[in-house]
Amino acid sequence: MHKGVWCSIATAWIGFKRINTTSGSFITPMFGAELGDGKAVFSLWAPDISEAKLKILGGLEYQMEKKETGWFKLSADGIGERALYFFVVDGKSIPDPASKYQPNGIHGPSALVSPDYPWSDGEWEGLDKEQLVIYEIHTGTFSPEGTFSGIASKLDYLRNLGVTAIELMPVSQFPGSRGWGYDGVYPFAVQNSYGGPTALKSLVDAAHRAHLGVILDVVYNHVGPEANYMQSLGPYFSKKYRSPWGLSFNFDDSGCDEVRRMVLENLQFWIRDFHIDGFRLDAVQAIVDNSPRHILEDIADTVHREGKLVIAESDLNDPRIVNSKELCGYGIDSQWLDDFHHSIHSLLTGERAGYYSDFGSLAHLVKSYQKAFVYDGQYSTFRKKTHGSPVDPQGCRFIVYIQNHDQVGNRGSGDRLSTILDTQGYMLAGAASILSGYIPMLFMGEEYGERNPFYYFSDFSDPQLIEGVREGRRRENSQVNDPQSESTFLASKLSWVQDQSVMSFYRELLKARKVYMGGCHGSRNLTWGEGWFTVAIDELYTIYALFDTPVEIAQAGTLLVASNSSFPEIIGTGRVRIKKGVGVYKISG
Amino acid sequence: MHKGVWCSIATAWIGFKRINTTSGSFITPMFGAELGDGKAVFSLWAPDISEAKLKILGGLEYQMEKKETGWFKLSADGIGERALYFFVVDGKSIPDPASKYQPNGIHGPSALVSPDYPWSDGEWEGLDKEQLVIYEIHTGTFSPEGTFSGIASKLDYLRNLGVTAIELMPVSQFPGSRGWGYDGVYPFAVQNSYGGPTALKSLVDAAHRAHLGVILDVVYNHVGPEANYMQSLGPYFSKKYRSPWGLSFNFDDSGCDEVRRMVLENLQFWIRDFHIDGFRLDAVQAIVDNSPRHILEDIADTVHREGKLVIAESDLNDPRIVNSKELCGYGIDSQWLDDFHHSIHSLLTGERAGYYSDFGSLAHLVKSYQKAFVYDGQYSTFRKKTHGSPVDPQGCRFIVYIQNHDQVGNRGSGDRLSTILDTQGYMLAGAASILSGYIPMLFMGEEYGERNPFYYFSDFSDPQLIEGVREGRRRENSQVNDPQSESTFLASKLSWVQDQSVMSFYRELLKARKVYMGGCHGSRNLTWGEGWFTVAIDELYTIYALFDTPVEIAQAGTLLVASNSSFPEIIGTGRVRIKKGVGVYKISG
Repeated sequence: MHKGVWCSIATAWIGFKRINTTSGSFITPMFGAELGDGKAVFSLWAPDISEAKLKILGGLEYQMEKKETGWFKLSADGIGERALYFFVVDGKSIPDPASKYQPNGIHGPSALVSPDYPWSDGEWEGLDKEQLVIYEIHTGTFSPEGTFSGIASKLDYLRNLGVTAIELMPVSQFPGSRGWGYDGVYPFAVQNSYGGPTALKSLVDAAHRAHLGVILDVVYNHVGPEANYMQSLGPYFSKKYRSPWGLSFNFDDSGCDEVRRMVLENLQFWIRDFHIDGFRLDAVQAIVDNSPRHILEDIADTVHREGKLVIAESDLNDPRIVNSKELCGYGIDSQWLDDFHHSIHSLLTGERAGYYSDFGSLAHLVKSYQKAFVYDGQYSTFRKKTHGSPVDPQGCRFIVYIQNHDQVGNRGSGDRLSTILDTQGYMLAGAASILSGYIPMLFMGEEYGERNPFYYFSDFSDPQLIEGVREGRRRENSQVNDPQSESTFLASKLSWVQDQSVMSFYRELLKARKVYMGGCHGSRNLTWGEGWFTVAIDELYTIYALFDTPVEIAQAGTLLVASNSSFPEIIGTGRVRIKKGVGVYKISG
Repeated sequence: MHKGVWCSIATAWIGFKRINTTSGSFITPMFGAELGDGKAVFSLWAPDISEAKLKILGGLEYQMEKKETGWFKLSADGIGERALYFFVVDGKSIPDPASKYQPNGIHGPSALVSPDYPWSDGEWEGLDKEQLVIYEIHTGTFSPEGTFSGIASKLDYLRNLGVTAIELMPVSQFPGSRGWGYDGVYPFAVQNSYGGPTALKSLVDAAHRAHLGVILDVVYNHVGPEANYMQSLGPYFSKKYRSPWGLSFNFDDSGCDEVRRMVLENLQFWIRDFHIDGFRLDAVQAIVDNSPRHILEDIADTVHREGKLVIAESDLNDPRIVNSKELCGYGIDSQWLDDFHHSIHSLLTGERAGYYSDFGSLAHLVKSYQKAFVYDGQYSTFRKKTHGSPVDPQGCRFIVYIQNHDQVGNRGSGDRLSTILDTQGYMLAGAASILSGYIPMLFMGEEYGERNPFYYFSDFSDPQLIEGVREGRRRENSQVNDPQSESTFLASKLSWVQDQSVMSFYRELLKARKVYMGGCHGSRNLTWGEGWFTVAIDELYTIYALFDTPVEIAQAGTLLVASNSSFPEIIGTGRVRIKKGVGVYKISG
């Protein structure tokens, strides 16, 4: 190992001056190397170590200066974009935990990345929450290329479909070249196999030009088990709390100021350097914080200060997630509504295993339309506890879906709803979510009835971990296909074999939502009987028949779109026999 | 082992009918054996086991019936008070985890206890929060006997001193015959070496007759490491959270309904069966609960429904602890104010080690008078994080003290303030807390300047645990005396050698608080300068001199009591040279 010269160009820690800030309200970043004004400033928060060096690959080694609260800093001239570096700690070369690019993967050197990019999205109007229709994408399986540029060619298609934002499953550098992304270990680095940071900027730029927003799935509840270099450097992780998936970030104990700051800077980084429009926070139930101010509150404030959106995945059925601060909440814009999914899935498929055991009747679905949380204080047999608390079911507070990466991929067989339901049932489900008055989310390929499975897959390198993941997926999800095998990943790619009848139906549903519903709605008028229900929202009246059955119609209306021809063109109050399917009417009179 | 006959008197689980309920708002108890109406009903919550028997010592064995949600129940006739029993699980005899008496200690059989007691406290008026003056007692070291009856003889003494409530350190059965009590494993059983349940009832009855309230220190943040029979029976403990002291109760995961219920029933049990007036919740920062409704909220509601008081020990500096629900709080009445203690202790002793490093200047003490929390959003060097959030410093929301079991006993040498400060400093400290406008708490013996130490002591039986505790106390608290040795316990007993000047001074302070302050106060007017400060509350003006110094007096007044003769009988505005000490004045004009 090159022992280096204590370099004369290493200067004292200078205060960072931000470049390229548009809104001016960002906090000064501390985490990660910064390029600008002809110099590079390296930073490492490592209070548990006494000495650190910077090693430029093919260059020199610099002794870093340790500052208060555990910061090592070094400012150096003459080091440009894409320069590769390691930190040297205890004689070992490690990547920068706040790396902005890992061109050779999780164990390789970190690369300097310029914050500059020739953005051409000046006319992007920003997300309109009322008109939000989200399309969830796994970058690796969406296109044959499995990259950000593979998404770019479909942007116009998505916009024409009626989608208003794409939501990318996590893109922070994760182990290997394929994976769902939830085991990332570099919050600031964009996955190399997806194309890295510049390709992501290019995708966001293109999406904005196509009038599509970009929501990013971010994981602050744990870090992945492989290549966690943070652990030995300082109190990045909680000693008190443990997530089901691994170490939890330390948001409330000694050293937590820096960890909280890292998360908030991370959000700002995506907004500032990548023009990201919103965030989906992974599994917030596993973000435990006993501080007077919960980190979720800080997250919501940070995102809102930049005029962006924040969505939570939560299985707590806790109104605090979406409640305003005045109502003791965290002020997050919206949360995923699993209860809606479980209600419609169990009702249409008849499945009752696992968490579906808590659902299955039409009454569950009706309650989810009316109250959002089906469990808002009732005993859950699956959870073996009383679950949830009542919430104000404002429409834009909840994201509903009939499929998402979890609901498909955590089925051992990865089978999509298109292969479980008949076409009438599938269209019915699609309408139920799109015309729910909540914010609909589609899982990639859903709009055309994609039939390829979506499995869990990974590309770890540690043999013990690989075996553990295999065993875990086998035991807990009955997944037969080896998650670690490339063929499992390849089998999960979209076929793009499109069922045109499904696709045009989805297009009509999205148009109906936009034109006749105008956005989210807080109240939904439902009627229901044996095998049917109707939902009236704004100018729309939708009739759902779970099987061939007489339906009591309570509105007059004219047909906009139906899944089969048993739905009359004109309806009035009274009883009509209808075949399984869904018909969407414009209310008249 | 006697294999028993499946007994014909074992009946189906009957709904419990409560006896001796006065207020009628108690929930029906599920935990613990109940005696009444000529029968005994045994209950065991053990969802993780498939079979349980009841073994009456010297009697029969009964098969218990397993009911829904993991309850084993058995109703049996002909078994009376003090009958000893075990449950038999997996061939092993174990005590009842909800035992109401362990006459032979933590590993011995459980005993049936009648809820009946010939109470004679009908004239007890109940606690008056405004007039609350708490006296913290460790039962084992308060009297030579070390029992509840050893306390009874001092009740009139305490009442005459001006105390209005005694607070008993935990009395739930803990390992061995001596200990602080925080490692209890039987929430419903009263420590046998203190005299057991009847002796506690007798003490409470006597206290009430002497017009003294009784506050009980209860531990819901963990259970002790020894004789934890709950662990193998069901999900009593959290898999997600860990307290620094051991397993945390499961308040938010599968099975938590029963655990939450156990805690709430436990509070009701102390109120109903023991006439307890209030509770001090040990270290609530270690009670982690991610439910929509925090268990602390349920605790506060349960206690308040019975018109009783609840106090929290908290090191979070989190206003939610004492805030009302409208202000997003848990609605707990009061919390211990460590910041006040640390401010006055470090100021008077000059100590700066450990957590005292965050304190030490007069400004800290002044802030604690004015804002309660000294750290309400500032960086704490000791904690290495930003700490706390501002709180409304209403007087009755905070308990202040210059000593308590922790602040004395966690000093390795167990040395009391009386042996650290000179008499003037000691009296000054006493006045500072008693006349603070907050609720004062005295640690037993403080009122007369007790000079014996109060060490940490224990009486575990597991050799490995004993060594771990020894090592831990040595390393973390520099305690040289062996905590496990009986001599350490005996050395901690009060000598009752009374410094009459200190005692009469304390009596005068408590009288002044009662007569001229009338109770708690939310606002305190302070002035201060180099080496002195004054506090004006209601009709009282108190002058504190940290050393011989000129003091700027801002009030006219007449002397009520002073620690030395340098304080003039009459004061007016102006500068007066005063010797170290404290003088209490009635404001005139």
